[in-house]
Amino acid sequence: MPYTTAVIGGSGFTGAELAELLLRHRSLRLTHLSSDAQAGEPVATVLPRLRTDLVFCRHDQVAGVEAAFLCLPSGSAAPIAVRLLSEGTRVVDLSPDFRLSADDYQRWYGRHPFPEMLPGVYGLTELHREEVAAAQLVANPGCYPTAALLALDPLCGLGLQEVLIDAKSGASGAGKTPSEKTHFCTVDEDLLAYGIGGHRHYPEIAAGIGINGGDPSLLFQPHVVPLQRGILETIYVRLAETPSSGELRGIYRRVYAEEPFVEICDGPPRLRDVTHTNRCRIFATVDERSGVVLLVVAIDNLLKGAAGQALQNMNLMLGLPEQEGLL
Amino acid sequence: MPYTTAVIGGSGFTGAELAELLLRHRSLRLTHLSSDAQAGEPVATVLPRLRTDLVFCRHDQVAGVEAAFLCLPSGSAAPIAVRLLSEGTRVVDLSPDFRLSADDYQRWYGRHPFPEMLPGVYGLTELHREEVAAAQLVANPGCYPTAALLALDPLCGLGLQEVLIDAKSGASGAGKTPSEKTHFCTVDEDLLAYGIGGHRHYPEIAAGIGINGGDPSLLFQPHVVPLQRGILETIYVRLAETPSSGELRGIYRRVYAEEPFVEICDGPPRLRDVTHTNRCRIFATVDERSGVVLLVVAIDNLLKGAAGQALQNMNLMLGLPEQEGLL
Amino acid sequence: MPYTTAVIGGSGFTGAELAELLLRHRSLRLTHLSSDAQAGEPVATVLPRLRTDLVFCRHDQVAGVEAAFLCLPSGSAAPIAVRLLSEGTRVVDLSPDFRLSADDYQRWYGRHPFPEMLPGVYGLTELHREEVAAAQLVANPGCYPTAALLALDPLCGLGLQEVLIDAKSGASGAGKTPSEKTHFCTVDEDLLAYGIGGHRHYPEIAAGIGINGGDPSLLFQPHVVPLQRGILETIYVRLAETPSSGELRGIYRRVYAEEPFVEICDGPPRLRDVTHTNRCRIFATVDERSGVVLLVVAIDNLLKGAAGQALQNMNLMLGLPEQEGLL
Amino acid sequence: MPYTTAVIGGSGFTGAELAELLLRHRSLRLTHLSSDAQAGEPVATVLPRLRTDLVFCRHDQVAGVEAAFLCLPSGSAAPIAVRLLSEGTRVVDLSPDFRLSADDYQRWYGRHPFPEMLPGVYGLTELHREEVAAAQLVANPGCYPTAALLALDPLCGLGLQEVLIDAKSGASGAGKTPSEKTHFCTVDEDLLAYGIGGHRHYPEIAAGIGINGGDPSLLFQPHVVPLQRGILETIYVRLAETPSSGELRGIYRRVYAEEPFVEICDGPPRLRDVTHTNRCRIFATVDERSGVVLLVVAIDNLLKGAAGQALQNMNLMLGLPEQEGLL
Repeated sequence: MPYTTAVIGGSGFTGAELAELLLRHRSLRLTHLSSDAQAGEPVATVLPRLRTDLVFCRHDQVAGVEAAFLCLPSGSAAPIAVRLLSEGTRVVDLSPDFRLSADDYQRWYGRHPFPEMLPGVYGLTELHREEVAAAQLVANPGCYPTAALLALDPLCGLGLQEVLIDAKSGASGAGKTPSEKTHFCTVDEDLLAYGIGGHRHYPEIAAGIGINGGDPSLLFQPHVVPLQRGILETIYVRLAETPSSGELRGIYRRVYAEEPFVEICDGPPRLRDVTHTNRCRIFATVDERSGVVLLVVAIDNLLKGAAGQALQNMNLMLGLPEQEGLL
Repeated sequence: MPYTTAVIGGSGFTGAELAELLLRHRSLRLTHLSSDAQAGEPVATVLPRLRTDLVFCRHDQVAGVEAAFLCLPSGSAAPIAVRLLSEGTRVVDLSPDFRLSADDYQRWYGRHPFPEMLPGVYGLTELHREEVAAAQLVANPGCYPTAALLALDPLCGLGLQEVLIDAKSGASGAGKTPSEKTHFCTVDEDLLAYGIGGHRHYPEIAAGIGINGGDPSLLFQPHVVPLQRGILETIYVRLAETPSSGELRGIYRRVYAEEPFVEICDGPPRLRDVTHTNRCRIFATVDERSGVVLLVVAIDNLLKGAAGQALQNMNLMLGLPEQEGLL
Repeated sequence: MPYTTAVIGGSGFTGAELAELLLRHRSLRLTHLSSDAQAGEPVATVLPRLRTDLVFCRHDQVAGVEAAFLCLPSGSAAPIAVRLLSEGTRVVDLSPDFRLSADDYQRWYGRHPFPEMLPGVYGLTELHREEVAAAQLVANPGCYPTAALLALDPLCGLGLQEVLIDAKSGASGAGKTPSEKTHFCTVDEDLLAYGIGGHRHYPEIAAGIGINGGDPSLLFQPHVVPLQRGILETIYVRLAETPSSGELRGIYRRVYAEEPFVEICDGPPRLRDVTHTNRCRIFATVDERSGVVLLVVAIDNLLKGAAGQALQNMNLMLGLPEQEGLL
Repeated sequence: MPYTTAVIGGSGFTGAELAELLLRHRSLRLTHLSSDAQAGEPVATVLPRLRTDLVFCRHDQVAGVEAAFLCLPSGSAAPIAVRLLSEGTRVVDLSPDFRLSADDYQRWYGRHPFPEMLPGVYGLTELHREEVAAAQLVANPGCYPTAALLALDPLCGLGLQEVLIDAKSGASGAGKTPSEKTHFCTVDEDLLAYGIGGHRHYPEIAAGIGINGGDPSLLFQPHVVPLQRGILETIYVRLAETPSSGELRGIYRRVYAEEPFVEICDGPPRLRDVTHTNRCRIFATVDERSGVVLLVVAIDNLLKGAAGQALQNMNLMLGLPEQEGLL
């Protein structure tokens, strides 16, 4: 018997991606897709890729499901998560509502309605598999932090001194809401550095690499590039003691040897090798001249960076095979 | 002494393009750039390509200029045009307000405030040069009709029986207002046929080829393609008597022999050969198997399809060299 | 026990797509991927999306398989097909080698080594399902004809008089071989009408709609658009007797009511609703003014237009569920 | 009397761009466009944007001109430059042949035929204006170094300690020669870090910022992004003593106050504000958390990064106004 499953906030990019994954999943059955704006409309009319007879419902009509994914803006997810948890639903929240410590949340987003619940279980699956498996609520990581932390984690024991993350994301990362910055004629044939002075994914990355009183130094600089899906991050790291490129590659291969979704490459990964999959590909080397450790990491921001990892987490939470329904 | 010149509606794609042309023009001096939404802001802040100290003014602050270009939505241009004409200003209106007959305007757009002024002088320069030169007000043609009519005009004497226009336009044709349909993730890697059942440029084309009681038959089908600027139209024509490909090419070469902005090609034109210019490139041939005359025509929708042709017309209206300030 | 399966010509776009489908298929096991140019190289090195330990072999090393897909240029496939058939292998040939009559092949491609085998079973699955199921060799249709014939077939009984196909294809249609015409800077932000005077897919379409002595008149005009995958065809048809739009929609819905991969839409289909699937979406309407039947049809050229339909055919040939391994 | 001018190597992107600039220039007259591969073909057939009756000649047919631009691969330019210099021609060489010291050239490119001529006058106009004006031969800088050095130069007096350059370039940077890496389906919707371990523009940048025995530390990491023209570099710098953001901006404004082609921005520059111009836009700020100086710089790689700057240099060498023929 498949688990009854809801996607709450089903009209954005991530919700639609999740719904598409769930409609093909053997052990999860999509029973609710909610969108307050589109309640009452057949899902297949709005999203013709989805072959389903479901009709969009309102968020507050979702009840009694065994599994739920929240694809809502920050602030909107927490109250709904709390209601669903009280009904015994397992919840993966794709918003930032449970990712940070209470202090960080306050600083970057403002007042949280349930600060005592912070931080939630951080669902970067490869790094927190056991906690995820035991959790009833999982905070699904942001797209940029997913790539950054998978790439940086193997270095955390080697004395991080300085971390510079130059991140490039496709336009789906900005969400589906139309604005001048997502207009085709703005994005196409252009490049933009944004979030100067601080992007909201900064504290997630900082917490993940254990920044303590400004040490190591971290700079995270995102850019928009003219493509739809995918994140490539080029990361420049200074370590207390720098291994050789060979040793470095060896470390990465050992750490991720058993991981079904993490691949260590012999050269810089391309987006095309990860898009439409839940995979993360990482290249690690040492720049001889400068002594800088150079990492290049690629994921599909809508899958490993959102819907895919959410499903990976839910599979674990329900005791299903972790790879079920994922490529 | 250069002529004082205003661009009214300077914050959209066409207005910005015109302003860029005018800032390089020897005989026209841009003195006003108006935008009710951005009045008071320095132009160079909003449009960094424009090196100017001008500050956006409100539309109603434009007065006393010798030349004005109206880049406004349908309905908004006519009253301003009338005011400026009364001040002796020469006006090129890039909106549809003066392009159609009173009947057509009523059918496609609704009530016109000055139906007795319709139709205005239709500024498809190559076809109406003398009227344009003598006019105080010129209705600048739509982008699709410009390409279509330059391609079709040489055939009008040969007994048009059926005209099918398959038009492909870049996303700038939809204007700068953000919406789901202009979102990068909507346009990129996609194609869309739109305007099923009737696009507002239909009556302009129909009038241009002299449709009378449904004869010849005309179908105009536009598409959005994932690029910024340029229109390519593939036009399929049945004639009463079909010439050979050689004769056809000869006709086009003769008709446009003296035209500075129209080029007849030996093969299908590419957008890249016309973008950022005021040129129109046309290829004409006969498909041997079907007897259909096949035309392929390319323009830059923002230049020959809008700002460039507007300047070409204004040059004529002011007695300046027609090519001044245009490539 | 899954069937042993080879992809011959595995280094192009179509071969890689097929291999990716086969690696996920329950009843077909990819045992050989051949490429004379890359023989000896691990497949996963060349195509990192493919998780397999296979090593590219030479074409002549493929033997003893139960199923084979030929992804080779015209002329190269036929001899290999003949060899495999003699070993009892079921073959889907994605080249044009068995699609046409002997006369048409001679006219468009030149001498065929086995003219007596022409035409092969034409694997446009929806139109020839029973022959495909019974065949040992199937000629997989071209990408443009697949879209065109699925859209046109329901009209064939209504007296086709004139058919104009304006086809737009992404750049993967041109294949993987680098040339000036596939350079990024050639394709990006440009549009090109090509194949003036006759594209090799013409005779396939002509045969499919039963052209006889030039009647009905057919013109097929392809274009390259700046995107990777997908074909959109806008088709203009004159019928002896034109139904209403409602009747027309009804006809299409009836004809394709049971088809798992054909969808009839209420508005023009978008590429995004078919890419990465084996689906074909069709919109049919009547243009009131001109009386022209307007069809818009969309497929993924690499799937329903190539690898997907090939697998759909092989599923049938092996008695497997037609949808197995396809979205 | 305009100066007679040749573009040697006129069939690549840079040569075509230069020819287009020269055809509009008042004081330079394009008299020769050479291409050994296309000698004998009318220029307007190969490059329809260029309205000229010129016919491509062979490189060795260029003689007796007053000014010449060399758009040739490394190694091919030097001998031709020497020949032209002996005829009294003023030469701007866009190849790397005269950019480096003899040692660096040997290390990165191999044997140089005239090592005693190295390094030539380095034509980064804003930094070497007087030498350029006095030179008969100028080595036009690489595209990446142009952006990097304009951004970094104002910091050179502040104690550079570490410089990390994350550069993003459109596909025209790879040149016009077709290859798998420039195929539309390779570049589109993808991102690639390349030149791992050392790109040939490294020594140019290193020399420009005065690296001496590895100090400061420099890492230059280029990427290909899916667009045609433009380079955006995000540069991370550690200084001995870090100014405030306000002081920093002040320094940049002072240094470039009189420069016609360098603009200091209040926020990150976009490619769209520099493409099709010879401008360079720079944003400089200090990241408060990490103390890193963050620079973002944008140029059009084909203009300020190649043809535009070459013309800017030639204007100076001939005593013409520096901005003549440039936007």
